[in-house]
Amino acid sequence: MPRLATGARERILEATVVLLREGGLSAAGLNEVVARAQAPKGSLYHYFPSGKVQIVGEALAVYAPCVASAIRAALHTRHPRSHRIRRLFADTAKRMQASGWLQSCAVGAVALDLGDGDDDRQLRSQCQAILRQWATLAAEGLPELPPPHAAAAGRYLITVLEGAQLQARLQRSAAPLREAAAAFDIYADSVARSIDGPIDGPIAS
Amino acid sequence: MPRLATGARERILEATVVLLREGGLSAAGLNEVVARAQAPKGSLYHYFPSGKVQIVGEALAVYAPCVASAIRAALHTRHPRSHRIRRLFADTAKRMQASGWLQSCAVGAVALDLGDGDDDRQLRSQCQAILRQWATLAAEGLPELPPPHAAAAGRYLITVLEGAQLQARLQRSAAPLREAAAAFDIYADSVARSIDGPIDGPIAS
Repeated sequence: MPRLATGARERILEATVVLLREGGLSAAGLNEVVARAQAPKGSLYHYFPSGKVQIVGEALAVYAPCVASAIRAALHTRHPRSHRIRRLFADTAKRMQASGWLQSCAVGAVALDLGDGDDDRQLRSQCQAILRQWATLAAEGLPELPPPHAAAAGRYLITVLEGAQLQARLQRSAAPLREAAAAFDIYADSVARSIDGPIDGPIAS
Repeated sequence: MPRLATGARERILEATVVLLREGGLSAAGLNEVVARAQAPKGSLYHYFPSGKVQIVGEALAVYAPCVASAIRAALHTRHPRSHRIRRLFADTAKRMQASGWLQSCAVGAVALDLGDGDDDRQLRSQCQAILRQWATLAAEGLPELPPPHAAAAGRYLITVLEGAQLQARLQRSAAPLREAAAAFDIYADSVARSIDGPIDGPIAS
């Protein structure tokens, strides 16, 4: 029973990530978190004295490096660019399918829930920083496009990835992610050609 | 006092659209709708006997044609393609900015909240149909790309528009929408060139 072997703190964060991916900020109510984590309510206040904003913030901090790793694993390789881009979107599709298409990006789901309270502002900064970091990693994974082309392409790749997850979730299908990968590759190819850079060069590592 | 001149039914749907754009399904709780609409709670049950799923469904049905009109106004013109695409994203930015960057696409926000209950399934079908309709309108606004290129480009345009709204909302800035428009145009240009079609032909109307 591996779940019982894990500490309550870890279970709470893990449950919060799942709830955020399912339904954003509003799905990660304290009662829902406790129920999903199978943790006593007291442990919530013990480990996260600042309440929901702390739990969500720490859960996003756990989630962000997982996506960063996935971006690195897909893009920071020596495969041709189309292969690397297709892999990023295919890996995302696999994770979504494994959840029965009920989970997508936690940051994306939180982004569309944010109001203008103090907690929202804090989480907005964090979400912004996470997407910026992913975009930088994506740009580093597109070395065919020297800066500033790569920087803009990295940001755009994250935009496309978020939009495609939203569509994939509605369609319960990998098709929107496949289509988005193909379309992004056409864009990247055009940008690479326009600057006379190598089209599918390996990444400098 | 124009709000008092409008009927309770219309006020409820209008308030629900705003709440969905702000925070998706979970933001549009019945209490929130009643408060925002300044409508008596009884009117909710009177006009929408099936409850939340009916209110949200009808609100999405009110919202969808507004976006469809915006797509037509931007894309179904005789301007060059880059101009048409930029206008679609710029109009979206204007609507978001007018809300203090607190509102984005209602369908996108709902999409990232959906579970697998009966109500969720019903709303998912509706959201899917709406995005499909917008994609068809977008494809018709890209007559440089004959089918099936136009159909895929139309779907991709909606994907990019949803992702860019998510980013714009986090950054509270039109920049992600501007960047996405430029990148989508590079893609569309490349597809148009690859099939030897006219690059910036007027739409057949």
